[in-house]
Amino acid sequence: MRDVSIIGIGQTKVGEHWDISLRHLALEALQAAMADAGVAQADTLYVGNMLSGELNGQEHLGALIADFAGLRGIEAMKVEAACASGAAALRLGYICVASGAAQIAIVLGIEKMTDAWGSDVTGALALAADGDYEVAQGLSFVAINALLMRRYMHEYAVKHMDFAPFSINAHENAMTNPYARFHMKITSERFERARMIVDPINLLDSSPIGDGAAAAVLVPAEAARAFSGVPVRIVASAVGTDTLAVHDRRDPLALDGAALSARRAYEQAGVGSEDIDLFELHDAFSIMAVLSLEAAGFADRGQGLRLAMEGEIGIKGRVPISTMGGLKARGHPVGATGVYQIVEVVQQLRGLAGHNQVENARLGMAQNIGGSGATVVTHILEAPE
Amino acid sequence: MRDVSIIGIGQTKVGEHWDISLRHLALEALQAAMADAGVAQADTLYVGNMLSGELNGQEHLGALIADFAGLRGIEAMKVEAACASGAAALRLGYICVASGAAQIAIVLGIEKMTDAWGSDVTGALALAADGDYEVAQGLSFVAINALLMRRYMHEYAVKHMDFAPFSINAHENAMTNPYARFHMKITSERFERARMIVDPINLLDSSPIGDGAAAAVLVPAEAARAFSGVPVRIVASAVGTDTLAVHDRRDPLALDGAALSARRAYEQAGVGSEDIDLFELHDAFSIMAVLSLEAAGFADRGQGLRLAMEGEIGIKGRVPISTMGGLKARGHPVGATGVYQIVEVVQQLRGLAGHNQVENARLGMAQNIGGSGATVVTHILEAPE
Repeated sequence: MRDVSIIGIGQTKVGEHWDISLRHLALEALQAAMADAGVAQADTLYVGNMLSGELNGQEHLGALIADFAGLRGIEAMKVEAACASGAAALRLGYICVASGAAQIAIVLGIEKMTDAWGSDVTGALALAADGDYEVAQGLSFVAINALLMRRYMHEYAVKHMDFAPFSINAHENAMTNPYARFHMKITSERFERARMIVDPINLLDSSPIGDGAAAAVLVPAEAARAFSGVPVRIVASAVGTDTLAVHDRRDPLALDGAALSARRAYEQAGVGSEDIDLFELHDAFSIMAVLSLEAAGFADRGQGLRLAMEGEIGIKGRVPISTMGGLKARGHPVGATGVYQIVEVVQQLRGLAGHNQVENARLGMAQNIGGSGATVVTHILEAPE
Repeated sequence: MRDVSIIGIGQTKVGEHWDISLRHLALEALQAAMADAGVAQADTLYVGNMLSGELNGQEHLGALIADFAGLRGIEAMKVEAACASGAAALRLGYICVASGAAQIAIVLGIEKMTDAWGSDVTGALALAADGDYEVAQGLSFVAINALLMRRYMHEYAVKHMDFAPFSINAHENAMTNPYARFHMKITSERFERARMIVDPINLLDSSPIGDGAAAAVLVPAEAARAFSGVPVRIVASAVGTDTLAVHDRRDPLALDGAALSARRAYEQAGVGSEDIDLFELHDAFSIMAVLSLEAAGFADRGQGLRLAMEGEIGIKGRVPISTMGGLKARGHPVGATGVYQIVEVVQQLRGLAGHNQVENARLGMAQNIGGSGATVVTHILEAPE
């Protein structure tokens, strides 16, 4: 396999884009990424998206967006792995360039959720869970996470308040990210007073949905210097899966899929969790942030909260997470999120993260989770020399 | 890139499987393919599917089906390219094994359409067309094909009756395919008397939807002999795209995406249309069969009908098509169709197509079309030595 580098990134602000159609949203991110890379053409476009059929009345996004972006004729398709669709698209772009099938691959993550067509968004998001055995029993996606959080609180005798540092950190970091949905600091008092959604998950435990698109341009590492964008190498790309239904798992709090995905990524890159300088994790809910830290080896079982309480998850901490706001405050346009994470890691590794810069960041990891841990895609990127 | 071979195939009968769930349907095809290949594990599963979210209330099929098939933990995702989703999944499986990222990849095409959840199937199929510029004007998918057929009849001064040989051939070939939806010969009289759907397309111009799943197991060609299945090599794998909306095209009857896809495939394989011994084309409607033959170079512009009228599309003809019944009579479970085509080409190249066997078949081509020609995936397979 050839080494692969990312030479261009682009993103739209996450928000409620009532005035922009799905294809225009895609175009904005694609044009930004292609301009950054200095490319006018590509061989392949992989579109990560979960809900365009249900929410926008449009499948077949690959050809649609390729044509709209001026790339008519190129290979294009959509990939879906629930909330991990974005990173799944990056995984395919990586394999495609690594194989030699493409010289330039573009990866797009996109989701348009605020002007839903037909379906309700909560119902649509539940399509990521097991329809026959979870959703049919009345479980929504938030409810599944609430069960996990309740179990965690019981098993480790921790309080809801102990999860506050995750949301506070994410909102703090989003303040200086112009693409983030929220620019609003929160306090632990505000966290604890927030409106209850599904006990014990309240509004500030939860990431907001939104409309957004993010894109990355991939080329063989050996050819990267020929383009204008500063190249960041992909040193690991790995997927791990687990059961959709949480009740089918060995241990609901273990996230075996995430552990598998991280382990495969570490092996590919020849590194361990201690070598990672920042970790864009999948903080769709504060409980998911904790479980991700533990599954990826940054904290022992039951110790993820302590890492946050000791201040180690901040920009200057031992394991900086959600450095541009994370899903919690940058926002979570589901199929786009995985590519946003990659865009943010590239910003960090290029040293262009501004106020949010992690000093001397050399290895950045992004982990995108579909469902409650059923598909987990992990990438490790390396800073330019 | 490494050469890649298909070492196992499996399929379910296409039909109305009211008593079988989506995951059980998948399992049946996967188990058959894995048994044929002699494998008990795999590294990757790509699921081609178009409408599971809309019709079955379930996204996230990759992890769901991997787990249900006893492959928990492996890399898995769903790929969507409208009716070309099946072949798009094969394209990804091919790239993945060719790159070295996987040693064993399984490709599944699946669609369950007869017990639709929520949506109506006609509305769901229209998600393959341009939602903002075609569907919003009231066009269904059949209507778009009717416009193309009407235009073809006008431009070449042919009659509806002239399309009969395509449907007659498909139904004839399906008689001896146990997996086909229809086992029913038709005559030209019956063709002409069939109920009108959208003028000039009648019931016997149209392929039937249905439930079905088909699977293929891919390994590096160099390793193929270590498995029990008779290996068939993939000598070309190519995708071409075009606009979703037919009115945006240079020429509505040209299928530029299909021509591009076929040309790329011929170049990869180093062959021309004259070298192809059978062609599993995308006869979703009889007009699509004609346009496909012309776009792939088997007939000059406006001459596709003549090929059929001269009897050259039969099993013993110059260009055998729909040799196991095609979409028209084997049936068209949309996201599964592309993999059914591959399974059938493998049957032919192994010399195991029974009554339907094309003599001395050495090179077989399959072309899977999404929308009215917006995504076209072409594969060429080569018989074992």
